[in-house]
Amino acid sequence: MDSQSQQSLARLVRDERIASLGTLFHGAPLVSLVLFSAADDGCAIDVHVSRLAQHTQGLLESGRVGLMIAEPDRDSRNPQTLARLSIQGEAKPIPTSDPHYDTARALYLSKFPTAALNFQLGDFLLVRIRPHSARLVTGFGRIFDLKADDLKRILTVSNP
Amino acid sequence: MDSQSQQSLARLVRDERIASLGTLFHGAPLVSLVLFSAADDGCAIDVHVSRLAQHTQGLLESGRVGLMIAEPDRDSRNPQTLARLSIQGEAKPIPTSDPHYDTARALYLSKFPTAALNFQLGDFLLVRIRPHSARLVTGFGRIFDLKADDLKRILTVSNP
Repeated sequence: MDSQSQQSLARLVRDERIASLGTLFHGAPLVSLVLFSAADDGCAIDVHVSRLAQHTQGLLESGRVGLMIAEPDRDSRNPQTLARLSIQGEAKPIPTSDPHYDTARALYLSKFPTAALNFQLGDFLLVRIRPHSARLVTGFGRIFDLKADDLKRILTVSNP
Repeated sequence: MDSQSQQSLARLVRDERIASLGTLFHGAPLVSLVLFSAADDGCAIDVHVSRLAQHTQGLLESGRVGLMIAEPDRDSRNPQTLARLSIQGEAKPIPTSDPHYDTARALYLSKFPTAALNFQLGDFLLVRIRPHSARLVTGFGRIFDLKADDLKRILTVSNP
């Protein structure tokens, strides 16, 4: 992968705030908006979701999820060339007793300070999405299929 | 539904260019970026996709799809309040012999003139997504569950 695409990947995971979460709901694909932060091990995405949300019911029923992080559209760009990362992976709630929970919460809150209130509500779960595989598109013909190890390697090298 | 939310809905469907398509690929949810245009009957979304794409394989295997259209994120906004429409519906290729094909192509090309080349390639399909149900979010606590008929009524009234 060229270094510009590596940087695009790092930027998507670090700087974007919203992602499109794909779950199964009543047996059919459902896409919802979620906020996300990157886990400290460089190879997982954390989302903070309400048990009341359709997508949370979906991911608790089946941990298999899709997650897409895309550069926001803007008029000056050909939308087909927008950088995006589409992950397929496994979603699992992080129990509050888990040793990683506090770090994950701190990273999420450093990105979304106004979400602090949600952590006091009983119906919210911090959920970790571990990619099995991913496809990165950074422009015309710049398409890269990645495994979890590739993602980890690139994100560790490209992030400051 | 308040009139501001009706206008948000009309704006999303008319003005946004990209959507997040949720399909099943190898049995698991996959989310991909697609460009879309609104069908002339006000109640369907058309996408133009390559047979080579993973999401096209997914939607040809099972027509059940999710599609989310969201306002682009920007720094000045709380991302939780971004307007978005999440559809669950049925995707079906429009055959070139279908009486609706030419209108659908014209509407798509009026939004994406540079896609003309793709219509000359044999591997592209124009696919119509008919919503069964949808959830619209236009801000905190402004969540509306809609059926296909509601969507049609609102889009017919709110679009010029």
